[in-house]
Amino acid sequence: MSHLVVQYKSSMHMNEFINPYIYPPPSYLSFLPLHSSIHGATTNHRPPPPYATGFRMNQPARRYIITASEAESMARSKGLTVPQLLPSLVKSAQDLARTPISKFNVGVVGLSSDGRIFFGGNIEFPGLPLHHSIHAEQFLITNLAAHGGGPKLLNIAVSAAPCGHCRQFLQELRGVSKTQIIVTDQPLENPDYKPISSILPNPFGPFDLLDQETPLILEKHSNKLSLKDDSSITQNGNTPNLSNGYHELINKNEETLITEALEAARGSHAPYSGCPSGVALMDCEGKVYKGSYMESAAYNPSMMPVQAALVAYMVAGGGGYERIVAAVLVEKEEVLVKQEDTARLMLKYISPKCEFRVLHCI
Amino acid sequence: MSHLVVQYKSSMHMNEFINPYIYPPPSYLSFLPLHSSIHGATTNHRPPPPYATGFRMNQPARRYIITASEAESMARSKGLTVPQLLPSLVKSAQDLARTPISKFNVGVVGLSSDGRIFFGGNIEFPGLPLHHSIHAEQFLITNLAAHGGGPKLLNIAVSAAPCGHCRQFLQELRGVSKTQIIVTDQPLENPDYKPISSILPNPFGPFDLLDQETPLILEKHSNKLSLKDDSSITQNGNTPNLSNGYHELINKNEETLITEALEAARGSHAPYSGCPSGVALMDCEGKVYKGSYMESAAYNPSMMPVQAALVAYMVAGGGGYERIVAAVLVEKEEVLVKQEDTARLMLKYISPKCEFRVLHCI
Repeated sequence: MSHLVVQYKSSMHMNEFINPYIYPPPSYLSFLPLHSSIHGATTNHRPPPPYATGFRMNQPARRYIITASEAESMARSKGLTVPQLLPSLVKSAQDLARTPISKFNVGVVGLSSDGRIFFGGNIEFPGLPLHHSIHAEQFLITNLAAHGGGPKLLNIAVSAAPCGHCRQFLQELRGVSKTQIIVTDQPLENPDYKPISSILPNPFGPFDLLDQETPLILEKHSNKLSLKDDSSITQNGNTPNLSNGYHELINKNEETLITEALEAARGSHAPYSGCPSGVALMDCEGKVYKGSYMESAAYNPSMMPVQAALVAYMVAGGGGYERIVAAVLVEKEEVLVKQEDTARLMLKYISPKCEFRVLHCI
Repeated sequence: MSHLVVQYKSSMHMNEFINPYIYPPPSYLSFLPLHSSIHGATTNHRPPPPYATGFRMNQPARRYIITASEAESMARSKGLTVPQLLPSLVKSAQDLARTPISKFNVGVVGLSSDGRIFFGGNIEFPGLPLHHSIHAEQFLITNLAAHGGGPKLLNIAVSAAPCGHCRQFLQELRGVSKTQIIVTDQPLENPDYKPISSILPNPFGPFDLLDQETPLILEKHSNKLSLKDDSSITQNGNTPNLSNGYHELINKNEETLITEALEAARGSHAPYSGCPSGVALMDCEGKVYKGSYMESAAYNPSMMPVQAALVAYMVAGGGGYERIVAAVLVEKEEVLVKQEDTARLMLKYISPKCEFRVLHCI
């Protein structure tokens, strides 16, 4: 079962709603029917119960990327080209979605010009307004960025017609109008790939606002940023001095966390606001994952750095959000687009015990 | 000058940045050059200084709507049809935009089937991530909703090519594929109206998820909701007992505020999440403005209820945000899409002294 299940079990007390951020759900939930209504589910902030910690041992490994040689080999064995292979992988991509609100799993796979295949699924965050959602296509691009960016996206296969928000976000890739797309749940009367330009004609995009030389998403960014000296520590939520039990581990990895968050900010794409930012997350094993802010010319479809870092965490096999125990955000202090409050809010919901630190850069 | 101006005046101390939420800016700012860079501006939370209070006396009235008879008369005087008149009104719509981040004013006008013309401009909120922005097309639809909804949108003229986010939000109107659109900043080789379906072919929309009978945006919603008894009062920010100087006025209008927020929730469009909500705002003169949550099938382009209420405030001539002194949000308590935290955050930035109350409904 690919869904995140948010269910009320009739034998439980009302205060024991299942935390929707436990991923995957405990196995007994697999036997409960899926309700179409989502009323009655909750987003409590209590720490997740112990059954959530066995994520990686009990689950088959999920794949977020296929190497070029393996992709070639898979296609050859079926007598297909690699672009022809993509639609058959969309179902696996749908299994990566985490959709506790919609239960509508979207999956997308993309073939890059270096021959690798990347996966993406849609991610939803209970307790917050819907504009925090990450769409499958945004996930895919962030997955590419997390693996070095660089190559162009040649072909995309997606389970459902992309929404306008996604068609807009894709505009932030250079030359995307020629990227070929196929939708796998459509009637088969015309199952061929079509260029992105055919599904968003006359687009509003980067070159309505930028010159041709400004780097776009998946291209190298080197924002000149360094840390200010007086950056302060802020614990997530209202308990500034409460240790989350990982204080020693956080101290040990402090320098890495800060360095990675700063690197993420240096690599962020913020040509419209001029407000770069980056986030690094650390899990309970001390592994660090970073994500760069990626701005859209149309503003709203932008990927916040905490969202990008969460995708980096997922594609590296990070598992349930409750395993995230520390987060560092690097951004400028006196700017018009600030990530701090919203990043704190999001982390409060998905990993209540996560220690959140903001460092300002200049 | 139509922009919200966010400038650092060289003679000022660093702590005296101009509050970007003062609208319009004090007149001396009109003589400062506009900088292309927005670095260095701030989003302080101090109460706005006294020079912000004279908004309505010093400004010509802004128009957000034109009656059917006046529209007919304006068109006739120019020897045009009303649809042909629309492009000439786009400039006035651009003047309604509040764009302290982008300085890129988008204006849109729409002709409804009852002959009225509605205006919209884009609205940006410094201090918050860009997904809080309201696009001109979203403003236009919220303006229509604030004036009774009902009629269909026949024609739209907009200053710049709509982004994908807007094309998606428009899908939430029944029959929008036939609405005719013209972009006024495009080369004149083909200046005719085209159907919306031509700019978002093969869309993802309401009918991928809903049946044909479910009401859409601008259609009548009657969500069966009533208030819970134990709803609590929460002051905006961290000072729960601090009076904002309008306590008597708020007490006097309490019932109206609550009734209007509940009415807004009853009228909200939340068929995808099942989480209706509404907001009512009160200004320092005791006038009340309400806004209903409007969900998009694609999630992210949804209009939060506090955004909708702000549009209602603007189109009623409400002026600067600092004049908003009380806000009530009505939503369900244990649900997956909660507006409370984000509404509080947004109000904290735009009107720091606003008293914010959340009431839960069932």
